[in-house]
Amino acid sequence: MKFVSFLSVVVNGEMIEYYDISGCYILRPWAMSIWELMQVFFDAEIKKMKINNSYFPLFVSKTVLEKEKDHIEGFAPEVAWVTKSGESELDVHIAIRPTSETVMYPYFSKWIRGHRDLPLRLNQWCNVVRWEFSNPTPFIRSREFLWQEGHTAFATKAEADSEVLDILELYRRIYEEFMAVPVIKGKKSEHEKFAGGLYTTTVEAFIPNTGRGIQGATSHCLGQNFAKMFEINFENEKGEKAMVWQNSWAYTTRTIGVMIMVHGDDKGLVLPPKVASVQVIVVPVPYKTVSTETLFDACAATVKCLSEAGIRAESDLRDNYSPGWKYSQWEMKGVPLRLEIGPKDLEKEQVRAVRRDNSEKVDIEMKNLAKEVKDMLDNIQQNLFDTAKVKRDACIQVVKTWDEFMEALNQKKMIFAPWCDEEEVERDVKARTKGETGAAKTLCSPFEQPDMPEGTLCFASGKPATKWTYWGRSY
Amino acid sequence: MKFVSFLSVVVNGEMIEYYDISGCYILRPWAMSIWELMQVFFDAEIKKMKINNSYFPLFVSKTVLEKEKDHIEGFAPEVAWVTKSGESELDVHIAIRPTSETVMYPYFSKWIRGHRDLPLRLNQWCNVVRWEFSNPTPFIRSREFLWQEGHTAFATKAEADSEVLDILELYRRIYEEFMAVPVIKGKKSEHEKFAGGLYTTTVEAFIPNTGRGIQGATSHCLGQNFAKMFEINFENEKGEKAMVWQNSWAYTTRTIGVMIMVHGDDKGLVLPPKVASVQVIVVPVPYKTVSTETLFDACAATVKCLSEAGIRAESDLRDNYSPGWKYSQWEMKGVPLRLEIGPKDLEKEQVRAVRRDNSEKVDIEMKNLAKEVKDMLDNIQQNLFDTAKVKRDACIQVVKTWDEFMEALNQKKMIFAPWCDEEEVERDVKARTKGETGAAKTLCSPFEQPDMPEGTLCFASGKPATKWTYWGRSY
Repeated sequence: MKFVSFLSVVVNGEMIEYYDISGCYILRPWAMSIWELMQVFFDAEIKKMKINNSYFPLFVSKTVLEKEKDHIEGFAPEVAWVTKSGESELDVHIAIRPTSETVMYPYFSKWIRGHRDLPLRLNQWCNVVRWEFSNPTPFIRSREFLWQEGHTAFATKAEADSEVLDILELYRRIYEEFMAVPVIKGKKSEHEKFAGGLYTTTVEAFIPNTGRGIQGATSHCLGQNFAKMFEINFENEKGEKAMVWQNSWAYTTRTIGVMIMVHGDDKGLVLPPKVASVQVIVVPVPYKTVSTETLFDACAATVKCLSEAGIRAESDLRDNYSPGWKYSQWEMKGVPLRLEIGPKDLEKEQVRAVRRDNSEKVDIEMKNLAKEVKDMLDNIQQNLFDTAKVKRDACIQVVKTWDEFMEALNQKKMIFAPWCDEEEVERDVKARTKGETGAAKTLCSPFEQPDMPEGTLCFASGKPATKWTYWGRSY
Repeated sequence: MKFVSFLSVVVNGEMIEYYDISGCYILRPWAMSIWELMQVFFDAEIKKMKINNSYFPLFVSKTVLEKEKDHIEGFAPEVAWVTKSGESELDVHIAIRPTSETVMYPYFSKWIRGHRDLPLRLNQWCNVVRWEFSNPTPFIRSREFLWQEGHTAFATKAEADSEVLDILELYRRIYEEFMAVPVIKGKKSEHEKFAGGLYTTTVEAFIPNTGRGIQGATSHCLGQNFAKMFEINFENEKGEKAMVWQNSWAYTTRTIGVMIMVHGDDKGLVLPPKVASVQVIVVPVPYKTVSTETLFDACAATVKCLSEAGIRAESDLRDNYSPGWKYSQWEMKGVPLRLEIGPKDLEKEQVRAVRRDNSEKVDIEMKNLAKEVKDMLDNIQQNLFDTAKVKRDACIQVVKTWDEFMEALNQKKMIFAPWCDEEEVERDVKARTKGETGAAKTLCSPFEQPDMPEGTLCFASGKPATKWTYWGRSY
């Protein structure tokens, strides 16, 4: 999907309304319902892991925000500052959270005393603000966005490491099982990791039509950097003073944007059944041989039958639009399956099913309705993922040399290359590829590493390569 | 509960942590879980009413905020302004929403064209900011708080009127069925209604220990004032141009504060079972005659049995605290029911149950466990409500004259008086009762009005009275 068409698809599909403050967007019910469906999944999963929800303030004072130096360097240019209330100047300027490490960790320090207070595992669902100036885009890069942010503290690094991956797996599931978007699990480079953290893991997606990578969600091990700054110490089992190991992790409304970019087409949105608030739309096809009442009754019966089987179905009985107009509108809104009911269908005791993903039309006997529709929705979900994966995989280009790299970059590929893993080299690649469409950077080094034959050299520096890494332009 | 004890109860009960910015508080998991339980209830109810969730931006531009004059007059002194991002001054100052009428209604105007676009019924769960300077108090009056805000538009006043009451009934249920707090449904006076609205309905609670009324939650009919300012017009069924009728309604985290004030006691929080994230805490009482393993197994079996019956139960198996210490801690946190299991209980195949609300102790046979515990929790829920209602009712004082009014006010009563319903008179009463502890004002005129014999005079003005109204000092 081209960029222009993404912008019109999110507006015409009633996901987004542009707002009069640049970089802020209205999430309409059609988008919020997707966010809520994922929230139900993720929230239940983290509660199983004994992670509790809390709510910390939107505001953070200047002194506290600036406590961890690397961290504030990463966020400072984007921080929005409150300086006035009513007509009065505030004595101290107050930042709006760009993320909540510095908001929360002074209290971690207060609450954690001994090893029995660990692990401390909190999450919150909230809004954050990053006043960015480059390319605001609905869902993908907005000045305010919704997310969950988890913040946890452990007695040992091993526990922290293990949680980082448990959470990353939930993020993979959100993308692959719900959004039907294939992602690659891996580690961010030193240059791209979270400001102030120890290491960052990520699920990376790729948008074939624009040839750009996109960071899907990240799970960071913060190590002990913040613990040191915020003095988060505890007495361990031996009675010695020790410092906690911390993680933070987040996914945002960006997930919805990635899904739209990956599946959307010329007709509009294509929603995977698992996240569609309306999975099946039932449209009556009136004709003079049958009374409106009979037809509407059949639609109602169909919706009832599907609802009782746990399928999210609605009917569109508006009398001021033609069936054709309704088909287009529900296609634009991405509803996975349309059921058409006309006089002939009534006669044959069937409905006509039309899939949004591949436009296939099938007649379904009413007596098998719920079962067939359920199977079809499962099939659509799987087909969307498979199709997206084939397209994504076709974009992956293995390169070994700088020339191959540049050629693949110009062809908007997701580049896979042996790399020496030096921060200096990544900076150099960025500098050499800088242009109107942005510089190339590392996306991630996948956990699944292919063999690296001895003597393999870094595509960029010519030094010995240490890991296979994905590169590309990105959002 | 006295004020000082409220502050220590919310901190010691691990509901709240004070934050380093005055008037902002951290909602800890013990408080958030209550908020979430109510959210599940309320969200499902409004979805049944076809009200959809959306999310509008945190920010509102100065021009838009100031569009409805009465409205902005009510909120202007409390508005927090963002004037800087990073090191740069913003060209235009941006307000943080104190409420979202002005954020949303320009888009209502855009989305609503014809009668088929109505009703438009949206809700959002979010944070709002009101930079108040008087008496910040956790839950009750904080500079940032969480709420839901519903905003709806209808073709007719009758539909709007009817929704106002449907929502108010949900607020009553939150207080009475979940929080076990008795409330009075009624209408706010002209002086106390929502700034810019047509009329405001409310559920009003009363805190016997402090002798103050407290506005529980409000459901406003906005009439057509905002519709006029924001040009929210539609073509009606006859093809004529018409203006919508609007409502807005909200409840906040204040609900939790009211609950704590009403039920809390010297030992700490008292949570009604319906909103307690832990309804039953199981505490082992070790003794040398029985192995720790046997005891812990019995605790685990008890928790399992209760969990399977849908009861939220946990055990406290910590080895570094005595049973007595644990009892105090769980009492402080307000868990409705404690089950103690010691060697004698094992022998007799029973557990000892101790109620938080009235300290009653009962032995329960293990074979009847789930059933008995369930009944006991229901009984606690009812008893908390009944007790609170008796206490609240004992505070209601009917007065007919100014002298009686002043006497009742000094005795911290919830005053019920015949009133002429003139705004001027309310202003006068406020002026005459102004003092260190705040002025008296109207709480509400209850929907259920007692008889008003002909010739009844207003307690304050001596003019003919038109309605019975509650008065008092309030939060």
